[in-house]
Amino acid sequence: MSNMQELGRRVKEASRVLGKASSGKKNEALEAIAAALWEKRADILAANGEDIAAGRENGLNEGLIDRLTLTESRLEGICTAVRQLIGLADPVGVIESGSVRPNGLMIEKVRVPLGAVGIIFESRPNVTVDGAALCLKSGNAALLRGGKEAIRSNMALANIMRGAVESCGLPADCVLLVEDTSRNSANEMMRLNGLLDVLIPRGGAGLIQAVVQNATVPVIETGVGNCHIYVEKTADPDMAEKIVVNAKTSRVSVCNAAESLLIDGGCAPAVLPRLAKALKEKGVTLYGCPEARKICPDMEEASEEDYGREYLDYKISVKVVFGVEEAIAHIARYSTGHSEAIVTRDYEAAQRFLNEVDSAAVYVNASTRFTDGGEFGLGAEIGISTQKLHARGPMGLDALTTCKYKVYGSGQIR
Amino acid sequence: MSNMQELGRRVKEASRVLGKASSGKKNEALEAIAAALWEKRADILAANGEDIAAGRENGLNEGLIDRLTLTESRLEGICTAVRQLIGLADPVGVIESGSVRPNGLMIEKVRVPLGAVGIIFESRPNVTVDGAALCLKSGNAALLRGGKEAIRSNMALANIMRGAVESCGLPADCVLLVEDTSRNSANEMMRLNGLLDVLIPRGGAGLIQAVVQNATVPVIETGVGNCHIYVEKTADPDMAEKIVVNAKTSRVSVCNAAESLLIDGGCAPAVLPRLAKALKEKGVTLYGCPEARKICPDMEEASEEDYGREYLDYKISVKVVFGVEEAIAHIARYSTGHSEAIVTRDYEAAQRFLNEVDSAAVYVNASTRFTDGGEFGLGAEIGISTQKLHARGPMGLDALTTCKYKVYGSGQIR
Repeated sequence: MSNMQELGRRVKEASRVLGKASSGKKNEALEAIAAALWEKRADILAANGEDIAAGRENGLNEGLIDRLTLTESRLEGICTAVRQLIGLADPVGVIESGSVRPNGLMIEKVRVPLGAVGIIFESRPNVTVDGAALCLKSGNAALLRGGKEAIRSNMALANIMRGAVESCGLPADCVLLVEDTSRNSANEMMRLNGLLDVLIPRGGAGLIQAVVQNATVPVIETGVGNCHIYVEKTADPDMAEKIVVNAKTSRVSVCNAAESLLIDGGCAPAVLPRLAKALKEKGVTLYGCPEARKICPDMEEASEEDYGREYLDYKISVKVVFGVEEAIAHIARYSTGHSEAIVTRDYEAAQRFLNEVDSAAVYVNASTRFTDGGEFGLGAEIGISTQKLHARGPMGLDALTTCKYKVYGSGQIR
Repeated sequence: MSNMQELGRRVKEASRVLGKASSGKKNEALEAIAAALWEKRADILAANGEDIAAGRENGLNEGLIDRLTLTESRLEGICTAVRQLIGLADPVGVIESGSVRPNGLMIEKVRVPLGAVGIIFESRPNVTVDGAALCLKSGNAALLRGGKEAIRSNMALANIMRGAVESCGLPADCVLLVEDTSRNSANEMMRLNGLLDVLIPRGGAGLIQAVVQNATVPVIETGVGNCHIYVEKTADPDMAEKIVVNAKTSRVSVCNAAESLLIDGGCAPAVLPRLAKALKEKGVTLYGCPEARKICPDMEEASEEDYGREYLDYKISVKVVFGVEEAIAHIARYSTGHSEAIVTRDYEAAQRFLNEVDSAAVYVNASTRFTDGGEFGLGAEIGISTQKLHARGPMGLDALTTCKYKVYGSGQIR
């Protein structure tokens, strides 16, 4: 048995104990984690300081250093997030449906934890705590494999969490960190069928694709968003401007930010110039199709690749389309299936867009920035699923559970 | 673009049209399929005859020949099954939940088709029709890839179904057969990410494992069942005998048949002999642990492998365990997570077994043979999921759908 299989076995075993724990016990463990992380903040910040120093030595760029960095205030935020989970309803044990069959069998469909959940993520120590806490709340043991640049921080965080969990009488292995950060360890983790019930990659497109391509364990794919705003020809120009500017610029680095503006040929000559001006004032560079550049000649030229790009930056592609049908076809071709919006005053256009755009969240007259567990009222968010199996769109604690059937008989045979 | 990618593109495109079709239109197409298959039964049976002749020439065993064979009466059964789908409720369009957020956004969670569904199966022509019809009913276009021994039958069936679907004004490509039955075509199909939304293998353990190991498209894993019956020490011996005999022998070739008998040391000396006798009278060979063989010396010796085996035959492994805990631990180690049953009169034993056995269906005092879409009241059955993501246990039409969020705004920004 390899070291990774041994870790898989341990986390699976812990999941069997945790799966039986009451909501009260799990909440007690969450409180213990938050308290211990805060109490031992000096140790955590010291370990994090070593990671940062090593990162600088190895030439990590400032963006990555920033993601890696913990401060007392960030740690306070992390502890607050853990405590917020305590107040949420426990998804485990909910009876989803039930019936008595004609032969007298009583069948209950009950929500249960997934079991052992693997999380593969980048060098963001906040994900270490967040992932472990979300799993714990939903009754799942977590096998955590973070990026190598954060290994000292992650070891400190995991050890503290393990001690806190154990102090509540739960197995320390409910939170288990993979300390081997080689590519090999990740690849082996992706193939722990029979030990891990599910694998969740959290990070950029490259990480997610690597997991999707290599994993044999079932994967929940999260979050690449090439989101579109379609300004239909009957759109209120003021509303269109407000929504486009918000969706593009309120936070450019997130997956629900708009990356592409489709504008109807019927209103483009009148409306596109003011949208372009408003975006430019916010520092956005526009990459337009030939039609768009006829109207706004100072736009950059869009290449074919621009339409498929998730910029995560102050950039947007612009395409003039003629009619809802062409807008929907363009989205079908280039979208990642995350979030799309139409701005319109036309009933039929709104209905067609809602029904025919095949994305997790489809909006009429609102910004795509609302695709978020908090905004949707789910409490916690594990991520935003862009696949169709199991969970789609913002995933709350429910997405970390499955169902099982309990069947109560009195001697029935078939 | 390879031929397989071209097929993927076609089925995806068809899925966009089918996804908009009304329940009435889909039911009309199902009726047209059933009528056309029956009308053209002579052509189908002729093609099937050629497959059978080729199969015999290539030395296919009689079991496989039997699965491959269509008769007028089997075809009638297939048409009846298609027509039965017409009466079932359409899962598409159901509003699962909805709310108005504090900012006035109205969010609806709506059930929608998965889109383009790939089905990989063996040389059973009935699956060709069943798979296409289940997909059609749930608004999904189907890319079907059956075994090479049935290719002539499948081409005849697919062509007739395509004509029927087209006669109702839906794209023929809602039903698309992969005519290249090379291993290469299957491997390419498993990697049609972005074109296929999901892949469902239907067949034996070998096929399913090949798909799980090689697919990058999300997979719904169905049905290997190493099902256990645990006769607890307080069990009513008559009930235990009835359930064990039924679960093992009522149909040995199915995934919900029992493959392993666990009997408590507290009742084994009194009860095991009569269970063994009753099973032997039905022609079952027992493979026992040393403890069991002390009680019934004429049992065969069980090897370690026997406990993990899905015999699908008149064979059963027998293990004496001491207490519910040991029974649960044994099941955790050897079960495939399909169905397990306890026979008991003890309240606490029943509750522990129900709560702690991590399988899709867990029974008290009933045969595992009930794990079935029809028996559970689901109407149709696509298969029985032994994985935890998306669907678990018997899968009805719902399992062929996903959700999307429709969000109705009035200019909201974040």
